[in-house]
Amino acid sequence: MEKPPSDSVGIVKVQYFTFADPPNEMALEKGGKLGPITIAYETYGNLNKEKSNAIMVCHALSGSAHAAGYYTDEDIKGPKKNTGWWDLMIGPGKPIDTNKYFIICPNIIGSCYGSTGPASKNPATGKEYGMSFPEVTIPDMVKAQKILLDSFGIDRLVSVIGGSMGGMQALEWALQFPDIPKSIIFIAASAALSAQEIALDAVGRNAIKIDPDWNGGSYYGTGKQLQGLAVARMVGHISYLSEEGMEKKFGRRAEDPAMAAAMSDFEKKFENGFAVEGYLAHQGKKFVDRFDANAYLYITKAMDYFDVDNKYGGGSLNKAMKRIKAEVMMVSFTSDWLFSPAQAKEIVQALTLNNKDVSYIEIKSIHGHDAFLLEKKTIAENKILGQAFKNFLIHIK
Amino acid sequence: MEKPPSDSVGIVKVQYFTFADPPNEMALEKGGKLGPITIAYETYGNLNKEKSNAIMVCHALSGSAHAAGYYTDEDIKGPKKNTGWWDLMIGPGKPIDTNKYFIICPNIIGSCYGSTGPASKNPATGKEYGMSFPEVTIPDMVKAQKILLDSFGIDRLVSVIGGSMGGMQALEWALQFPDIPKSIIFIAASAALSAQEIALDAVGRNAIKIDPDWNGGSYYGTGKQLQGLAVARMVGHISYLSEEGMEKKFGRRAEDPAMAAAMSDFEKKFENGFAVEGYLAHQGKKFVDRFDANAYLYITKAMDYFDVDNKYGGGSLNKAMKRIKAEVMMVSFTSDWLFSPAQAKEIVQALTLNNKDVSYIEIKSIHGHDAFLLEKKTIAENKILGQAFKNFLIHIK
Repeated sequence: MEKPPSDSVGIVKVQYFTFADPPNEMALEKGGKLGPITIAYETYGNLNKEKSNAIMVCHALSGSAHAAGYYTDEDIKGPKKNTGWWDLMIGPGKPIDTNKYFIICPNIIGSCYGSTGPASKNPATGKEYGMSFPEVTIPDMVKAQKILLDSFGIDRLVSVIGGSMGGMQALEWALQFPDIPKSIIFIAASAALSAQEIALDAVGRNAIKIDPDWNGGSYYGTGKQLQGLAVARMVGHISYLSEEGMEKKFGRRAEDPAMAAAMSDFEKKFENGFAVEGYLAHQGKKFVDRFDANAYLYITKAMDYFDVDNKYGGGSLNKAMKRIKAEVMMVSFTSDWLFSPAQAKEIVQALTLNNKDVSYIEIKSIHGHDAFLLEKKTIAENKILGQAFKNFLIHIK
Repeated sequence: MEKPPSDSVGIVKVQYFTFADPPNEMALEKGGKLGPITIAYETYGNLNKEKSNAIMVCHALSGSAHAAGYYTDEDIKGPKKNTGWWDLMIGPGKPIDTNKYFIICPNIIGSCYGSTGPASKNPATGKEYGMSFPEVTIPDMVKAQKILLDSFGIDRLVSVIGGSMGGMQALEWALQFPDIPKSIIFIAASAALSAQEIALDAVGRNAIKIDPDWNGGSYYGTGKQLQGLAVARMVGHISYLSEEGMEKKFGRRAEDPAMAAAMSDFEKKFENGFAVEGYLAHQGKKFVDRFDANAYLYITKAMDYFDVDNKYGGGSLNKAMKRIKAEVMMVSFTSDWLFSPAQAKEIVQALTLNNKDVSYIEIKSIHGHDAFLLEKKTIAENKILGQAFKNFLIHIK
């Protein structure tokens, strides 16, 4: 057996929680009910006797419950294939320190990584929900997470932490359950999508919809590779990178032969494809292999619907922020044009006007929205982010 | 008969020029030949005896030869349906004054508005070219325009004027035929696309390609509405507007009922669609009705290939600009993120370093790349632009 690094949470297992009490359905924000609901989650570290050391980590659009550690020995040995998506942040002695904290990372409802979503079987029919899955919103996702939290008997969280859509969940936690999180860390997110962001999501959804293999959402078991989902992911990747970052990474370089293999036949027809085209094609292909197209539709729509001003402030962000009791740390990246520093600062301002405890860090980066994710190129950003986590969490009592 | 406004060029007719001399094929930059080539074009004003008052106007990606005037009486009466795309700029007394100048506006080769393109019938087979159409580049388009110009016996142009891809053609004119244009006006364009711009084009092309009705480019006569082309246009529209402009125009407003009719069934399923989604769906639908998907593939690829630095400067923009003899006016719009002021300024700098005659105007606008096109909301920008044309053209002798 391979030994994981000493600052790793080691081998972990995804766990499942299913709402068991009758009625086992949860009322949804947009109407309708969903149930039974299963939530896939992972935990790291140990819950103390007082149940006072829990932190909830929330994932982004295409993330999963697997935030830290490894599933198998193989993951430890080889080029890390299946390491948790925030392994750099979570572990013994790491910024979110498993020696001190008990961390819970749930997969959101509507996703395809173990929690109930459109790819799950509807017990009433024995078939996958597909497009009969009800619309779920970020408030619904958080409501379900709260039921999971109750199952542990935890009534306060040291923090809720997340980036992108995970940041939206953190903010929703502080709004829907003001007395539960003592703090939230909100990274590269906003209180509501702009028209441009909704438009980008709409393009992705339309690309899925026009793919005949999508077939109105009924494609389970066909083994079809949904090319519309690949196109949706390409749009996503453009928005996750900054113009400057893309220019530095690809510029006008021609496709290299290894990447060219990932190009579509159409792109191959035109010789002299550009490296950036191969990159997008590759990212699209990888995504189709791991994600569910219907989940993509539902989750992007949930992001579009997220609107703190309207839900909690009658159209006013200032009023909405009145509810917040948690201490807030906000982080944005200078070149993030999907969730810009300007959007984050609006929230900072609204919190400040309400005399709330808020700190704001704008991290200089050319890596756009993706800067909070773990890649070699974002090590500098993540060092700053990790240190900020430590400094912030240490004084949350 | 309706009387057109006094500053209109009135009723115009599209004309066709086909290279008649043997060999009637034109060698193409990427290899291969194309022929016979027909160019659809319109002219406005009168060519003087000395043939010294001609101006070439070049259109953008989805434009046509119909830059000014009307085709029928109906166009004059009703809500202007078929007015030329730059009617505000071209006419008696207008910024590009038909009392003084003879204006030629050719449809680019590769397009679908009368010039030879993938939707044209290949005389060798009697069938539409489709994907057997050879790759054409912006230098090829300009080379064909030069043959058209020769047919008039014109050897100098007062100016070549264009926006977006039309600007690229203007620049190419000054580089490929330095002794022909006395001046060029280059609006909202660049010397080469950035990685982000190529990426946006690639998404559009992939959306077309995954549409089964595209069928490898063989869809002519099927009457199919290519939804992939609609998605490509949606991506385009996001890049043509600025974030600020979209926010002002749509924000998070819900779809209004009239626009909702244009929404897809999928979007309808999710109630409370956003206005911006309806707008994109509507733009996509309109585009499918008027444009050819294969032409979109070829033309965007031609834009991607455009690379003045490499073609004329061995990788150096400064060296490339040495060739320029034309007086240059460059225009960009502050919120244009597709072809940013920064990209324009690089050309201005390279021209200045070479002691070329260049002027640069950066017009403040929230309307992004679309600011140079005619819409009610861009009247202010177009007034400034029109005045700049007048001031510039008056001293070109």
